[in-house]
Amino acid sequence: MPLMRSWVESANAPDTDFPLNNLPCGVFSLGDGEMRCGVAIGEMILDVTGLEEAGLIAPDPEAAVFDVAHWNDFMELGPEAWAAFRARLTELLAEGAAERGRVEPHLVAMAEARLHMPFSVSEFTDFYAGKHHAMNVGTMFRGPENALPPNWLSIPIGYNGRASSVVVSGTDFRRPWGQLKSPEHELPAFLPSRRFDFELEIGAIVGQPSQGMVSVAEADRMIFGYVLLNDWSARDIQAWEYQPLGPFQAKATATTISPWIVMAAALEPFRVSTPPRERPLLPYLQEPGPMLYDIHLEVDLTPEGGEPTTITRTNYREMYYSSAQQLAHHTSSGCPMNVGDLLGSGTISGPTKESRGSLLELSWGGKEPITLKGGGKRSFIEDNDTITMRGWAQGDGYRIGFGECTGKVLPALPEDELPFNRR
Amino acid sequence: MPLMRSWVESANAPDTDFPLNNLPCGVFSLGDGEMRCGVAIGEMILDVTGLEEAGLIAPDPEAAVFDVAHWNDFMELGPEAWAAFRARLTELLAEGAAERGRVEPHLVAMAEARLHMPFSVSEFTDFYAGKHHAMNVGTMFRGPENALPPNWLSIPIGYNGRASSVVVSGTDFRRPWGQLKSPEHELPAFLPSRRFDFELEIGAIVGQPSQGMVSVAEADRMIFGYVLLNDWSARDIQAWEYQPLGPFQAKATATTISPWIVMAAALEPFRVSTPPRERPLLPYLQEPGPMLYDIHLEVDLTPEGGEPTTITRTNYREMYYSSAQQLAHHTSSGCPMNVGDLLGSGTISGPTKESRGSLLELSWGGKEPITLKGGGKRSFIEDNDTITMRGWAQGDGYRIGFGECTGKVLPALPEDELPFNRR
Repeated sequence: MPLMRSWVESANAPDTDFPLNNLPCGVFSLGDGEMRCGVAIGEMILDVTGLEEAGLIAPDPEAAVFDVAHWNDFMELGPEAWAAFRARLTELLAEGAAERGRVEPHLVAMAEARLHMPFSVSEFTDFYAGKHHAMNVGTMFRGPENALPPNWLSIPIGYNGRASSVVVSGTDFRRPWGQLKSPEHELPAFLPSRRFDFELEIGAIVGQPSQGMVSVAEADRMIFGYVLLNDWSARDIQAWEYQPLGPFQAKATATTISPWIVMAAALEPFRVSTPPRERPLLPYLQEPGPMLYDIHLEVDLTPEGGEPTTITRTNYREMYYSSAQQLAHHTSSGCPMNVGDLLGSGTISGPTKESRGSLLELSWGGKEPITLKGGGKRSFIEDNDTITMRGWAQGDGYRIGFGECTGKVLPALPEDELPFNRR
Repeated sequence: MPLMRSWVESANAPDTDFPLNNLPCGVFSLGDGEMRCGVAIGEMILDVTGLEEAGLIAPDPEAAVFDVAHWNDFMELGPEAWAAFRARLTELLAEGAAERGRVEPHLVAMAEARLHMPFSVSEFTDFYAGKHHAMNVGTMFRGPENALPPNWLSIPIGYNGRASSVVVSGTDFRRPWGQLKSPEHELPAFLPSRRFDFELEIGAIVGQPSQGMVSVAEADRMIFGYVLLNDWSARDIQAWEYQPLGPFQAKATATTISPWIVMAAALEPFRVSTPPRERPLLPYLQEPGPMLYDIHLEVDLTPEGGEPTTITRTNYREMYYSSAQQLAHHTSSGCPMNVGDLLGSGTISGPTKESRGSLLELSWGGKEPITLKGGGKRSFIEDNDTITMRGWAQGDGYRIGFGECTGKVLPALPEDELPFNRR
């Protein structure tokens, strides 16, 4: 599919994240104004709350769906409404559109807008579905022979995360405190995390509910769209807490998502298959067609006042399991899924050192610190470092981009401000 | 504190779960009528939605809080409003109440009502905080020397569960399918769980939100009330899936709660301390006073068409960590908590064989099946078995009871109805 040209000129630039082919879904506000639903188009945001009020769109003929500051009500309408909405916006924004004059007043400059969480997260599940990542982490902790857990090639391993900690790009937060136990001590101490890390992931957003088990094909149709996702991780908190029931506080400080939901429909031309199976999958996990996407991904680390260094470049197609497989597995025991459920892909590492999706892997557990532009070294994230993720599918003369997923790690709360020390 | 006498005569019986001292919070409907908020009093339900409409109560002077089918809006008002509400209901329902005539039309017979989920579950976290349970399970799997994980005496170990699978007492559900790998096979098969189990727990309901870390004392004040909780568990799914990131589909089929939230205020006379510490706790987990409750608990197993057998009797005071400690730990990395968050205590096993809180423990991994009245044997739950939990704090001539927490395990979905087999 070629670039679809729009009368919004900035949407026709070959390097914009937001051509007419994309139309990703977000929530924005201007100044002290209310939060409204919008769609990114070039350097502008189309105010779809305004379009609905003006009667130019009506995704649900019975009731407003954009009079709220999230896309959940729209997602509930289902795949036919999603497709009709895209078709209508394409008509309104295409070069030569008849209704341009009625649409233009509903455009605002993205540079002037503040972006908010695009949807209300019902529940958050994180997976461990990248084989390079699992091999790297397993090799570091258990040696190359025992790197992959015995179940890894049979199960898209997942664990429940914490929806309340999901924040939108640009939300800075403090380094967490937690129980740390170093090898040389017998007992843990309560300290700020020293091995705080990012994890590069793609998040899939469930747009339709289910009761009972669903097939991989049904799961694929339930996914509304995708975001970039940074699953911030305190490696030292995790090391001490995670046996036997998995990561808990190590993953609960924050999970950052990019502000624009790229609808699955926009990624359709970029579908690719998962890698060859090294062990046959059980029938409930077998895919009826290509379920991954060819999405280029990269991560910058920027020290306070310094310049950014791109520390990894990889691709979503490296994953061993797709989001549709993960979602089908998620329902296998009868677990109900809801609109707004968020599934993290798991860390997306490629096969080379330069394509690893976390500092744990890039610095090989801290043993091989990476060098930044300007000469600084990093094993893990230092105070006031900013991590920025970008991603896009590369079409013929256009990109389907996600915008930035960024966050700064502020210093930990001072010890005398901890709640049990306050007087 | 003695029994507080009510003009609702059935509330004065020494064995009712719902004397005037209790006033637990639920949601009910009559026939095809709408769901309304109610408070249990003896054999009756006081329709507080009706009381609010009639102007007899006004927990929030600005807006209705009982015009919805959950208690979340009321919980949001905070501890002072909770106390004022209890005081006002006590005034209205006490023997000799001046306004009895205006209140009486808002009483309905509990026997005629259907009970629903009393609150909207924001997120669900389950803990592993009973030492007898951890020792039993650990001994079975790792031997008595390595029974307790090294972190157990330092951390109230928890993992995130699935809020969407929480159901109210009386909701029957099907036995789950899942990946099972028996020791004699190299690869797993997709089969109905053969080792399906209950776990006897108490659920704490968070009634106030937090951002950032809170102390144990603050956490205690955030807890609105408690329910009985059955954390249904597929032991065979868990055995294969849980390394390295913890239980996932093994716990996602259903979690059943009792229909009445017993407010923390009603349990105040029954506070007891956690057992002596075997290892000093870090300051952030130290309790400023007694944080557990003396609550007698028991579990019946009833085969289809058979009679109930009480298979365990234990007490909530057996827990090593309190819900307040768990909640404080939950916030330690900065994790935000919300109104409606549900924290499962972990399985409540006592020190004796007869006080174990799961069939895994009662049948010692299936090696010592228990005998039911009527002669049947059980290692794990069989199709159409019903599990019923009861619990109460015993006062002087009265009980603070929870009502029943019950559920029946229906046969698994037939193989030809699995979604990937449907044609």
